[in-house]
Amino acid sequence: MFNAAIKAVDVVLNVSLSRRTVLCSIRHYCKKSSKKLRVSEALEGSDVGSNITVEGWVRSVRSQKDNLFVHVNDGSCLQPLQIVASSELNDAMLTFGSAVEVTGCLKQSPSRKQPVELLADQINVVGGCDTLEFPFKIKERHGLDYVRQYPHMRCRTNVFSSMMRIRSAASAAIHSHFTERGFIQIHTPVITSNDCEGAGELFQVEPSGQTTEPDKNFFSVPAFLTVSGQLHLEVMSGAFSRVYTFGPTFRAENSQSRRHLAEFYMVEAELAFTQSLEDLTKVMEDLFRSVTEQVLDRCSEDVDLFHQRVSPGHRAVVEAMLKESFTVISYTEAIDILNRSSHNFVFPTTWGCDLQTEHEKFLVKHCGNLPVFVTDYPYDLKPFYARDNLDHPLHTAAAVDLLVPGVGELCGGSLREDRLDLLTARLSQAGMEDTYDWYLDLRRFGSAPHGGFGMGFERYLQCILGVDNIKDVIPFPRFSHSCQL
Amino acid sequence: MFNAAIKAVDVVLNVSLSRRTVLCSIRHYCKKSSKKLRVSEALEGSDVGSNITVEGWVRSVRSQKDNLFVHVNDGSCLQPLQIVASSELNDAMLTFGSAVEVTGCLKQSPSRKQPVELLADQINVVGGCDTLEFPFKIKERHGLDYVRQYPHMRCRTNVFSSMMRIRSAASAAIHSHFTERGFIQIHTPVITSNDCEGAGELFQVEPSGQTTEPDKNFFSVPAFLTVSGQLHLEVMSGAFSRVYTFGPTFRAENSQSRRHLAEFYMVEAELAFTQSLEDLTKVMEDLFRSVTEQVLDRCSEDVDLFHQRVSPGHRAVVEAMLKESFTVISYTEAIDILNRSSHNFVFPTTWGCDLQTEHEKFLVKHCGNLPVFVTDYPYDLKPFYARDNLDHPLHTAAAVDLLVPGVGELCGGSLREDRLDLLTARLSQAGMEDTYDWYLDLRRFGSAPHGGFGMGFERYLQCILGVDNIKDVIPFPRFSHSCQL
Repeated sequence: MFNAAIKAVDVVLNVSLSRRTVLCSIRHYCKKSSKKLRVSEALEGSDVGSNITVEGWVRSVRSQKDNLFVHVNDGSCLQPLQIVASSELNDAMLTFGSAVEVTGCLKQSPSRKQPVELLADQINVVGGCDTLEFPFKIKERHGLDYVRQYPHMRCRTNVFSSMMRIRSAASAAIHSHFTERGFIQIHTPVITSNDCEGAGELFQVEPSGQTTEPDKNFFSVPAFLTVSGQLHLEVMSGAFSRVYTFGPTFRAENSQSRRHLAEFYMVEAELAFTQSLEDLTKVMEDLFRSVTEQVLDRCSEDVDLFHQRVSPGHRAVVEAMLKESFTVISYTEAIDILNRSSHNFVFPTTWGCDLQTEHEKFLVKHCGNLPVFVTDYPYDLKPFYARDNLDHPLHTAAAVDLLVPGVGELCGGSLREDRLDLLTARLSQAGMEDTYDWYLDLRRFGSAPHGGFGMGFERYLQCILGVDNIKDVIPFPRFSHSCQL
Repeated sequence: MFNAAIKAVDVVLNVSLSRRTVLCSIRHYCKKSSKKLRVSEALEGSDVGSNITVEGWVRSVRSQKDNLFVHVNDGSCLQPLQIVASSELNDAMLTFGSAVEVTGCLKQSPSRKQPVELLADQINVVGGCDTLEFPFKIKERHGLDYVRQYPHMRCRTNVFSSMMRIRSAASAAIHSHFTERGFIQIHTPVITSNDCEGAGELFQVEPSGQTTEPDKNFFSVPAFLTVSGQLHLEVMSGAFSRVYTFGPTFRAENSQSRRHLAEFYMVEAELAFTQSLEDLTKVMEDLFRSVTEQVLDRCSEDVDLFHQRVSPGHRAVVEAMLKESFTVISYTEAIDILNRSSHNFVFPTTWGCDLQTEHEKFLVKHCGNLPVFVTDYPYDLKPFYARDNLDHPLHTAAAVDLLVPGVGELCGGSLREDRLDLLTARLSQAGMEDTYDWYLDLRRFGSAPHGGFGMGFERYLQCILGVDNIKDVIPFPRFSHSCQL
């Protein structure tokens, strides 16, 4: 016991002078062999009575007559651990924002505010914090707009750290959702020679400082950042039946709106032997429900922070989404609804037009502020791979979008044209038959009816948390004129 | 029962003419309401006695007097399901590579070769396969070099489909490994204005067809594809203590070697309150062991395929790696070992030189063909962020590499310089003080001793499977002069 204490002092003396340690003379009746715990583990309470060490950052310091109260957060959860120490342990470097190691005895707290507290007999300030220069102030609630100015610091605020934990949990939930259902994860490439959407707005890639002249391309062909992993997933669905990918996608969109990023994350899935849009909408709805339920379950405190402070009233919206099954309407019905409404839209609606965000939001409201699938879009609006419904006079393709409250379009999907003759005709009409010869091969050799969809991950987070600006749900946002860090 | 059969015929009549269905007149004593199963589920055997439907691709067709034997694989596992049908069900379109839906009764197999078989009363060929044009031939074992020529088709071979299942399982194991240990996953950005390694060989990014003149950059600054998420993880480790990222990284290396890709995957982790290299090597070794054990457990058949067919004898190497704990030697000891050896190296070894692949492989062999950590590299070899050991006359930094059999360097890591004065001095020496002012902020406000490492995911797969060419462990390889699909 004594040896351990001496060793601790030795260690302290050996470290750089910028660190300070104050050893307290008061000893508590507690086992002395110290166990390292995360704050979340300490708060669980099963180590009450043990000597523990906790490491983290100071969220508040309050000095009373004989006692010092320090709140320490280590990012493992939203709640800090309350440290109670003799005021002898106070120190000029023990400030808001400083990094500390605290050792002491974990006790049940006499206060109702927290289940446990740590009676410290040692507080090491391992890294000080100049509170005057530090962009965040103690006990102040900084708005999202303010903290967004500090991309390397905003993770130290409560709201943004909750966001990152939710994002991480949602990400884990997506992986386990698909794994449990027998999907194989495919790392579809970021660099590609395809333009899947045919929508332009591509980023091109060449070695730094090099020419982009076609004959000198690093890859021998022009290479772009992917806008979707769909075509690569289609390759793989022809071997594994069910595949998914979850990674970054890119659009060189010259927009600084609250809805767009140049780099954002997409979950995409592709299913072979899929015969109808209903097969697809079931998978999309199932994904939304299971991931959301897992996130609400595993990050309840973090989600509550958003539903209480950032978007009051949004909890009810999320609960309604989970309770009711999603509505399905056809594009043609959607146009009817829009045309019959008395709402003054900026963009007029006629059969054949693309749905704008204002239309999508109206349709969601119209359907009770609940998610709504819109199916069977005009054939001419959809890319070459969408399956022709062979209907008339209103010629449609078997495509579907999922519209959700607050966001508008969350998912887009379609059955893929699996009929070689129809696909060949459409590609040759567009002069792309040679470029996509490999894609036609997928139909030449063991073609199966198949379909898939993509879900924007940031929009998903906005939807369940009620966050208005897409830049607040991604760690390091990239958009036109901004690539900080 | 009768209705269901009629409905099936209706469906058949409605589908495109390229599909063919043959309904068999022989009925088996079996429940008729059909349940869709994956091949892996059918092989488990719990549905013996049930009427099931399986969808997949034909791996072989064998016609005997009265019976037809068809092997169907759907990518859910390596093994196919044996279909037994009356030869009446044979059909010209039922060939190797075709896509089929098969319905019938699942029975225990009389043969020892498979646990169960499907007595089919209906086989739909939903997509034919021109076997003359199809690049793979029935029952032929195509080499990895051959199948690599068909990036859109190679997932339909046994070896490559096993590889993709292993890759997916290893990926899931990495996520669950970190999640279970309280790490937060961070989606570090692909597009960045940093050059973390300072090694050059960067890809630059600009909208397609646009100039790369500095004043017209899309992001207002030159933007590159990331070579490492480390600096972004360091930001996040200052709030969450333990963080990881797992995603694509890029090098514009003009190499077509078996060891390099322009786009490859890295697992990176960063840990705050990390005081020694030993803390780091424990985390690295733990990651390697737990992921490998999970992969061997969950993909035993697929791994066996590699250990038996692709790299005979490699199983013993993997088992030895898991049995023994990893060796730790210092760089200085490593140089001693190399200098004392009688081996003729292409690159000479003197204290201060970088270790080449030939040296790394020698050290691994020297240590019993087992993984070996090399620690404390010359200070001048390491990037600015590596922690100065402040030793002399052999000046080293607290950096560590993990070398493994067959591959050489698998992981690289270091303690990071957390002392503001030392870091500022090194950055200003390199003229980078302004660029990395935000990075210095991390040391100004609540700095904690921290460290981290990265593991090349493709090299990891090569290491445990004994695969020689890195292009065979990634779905769509990108390298100099090649960006197919």
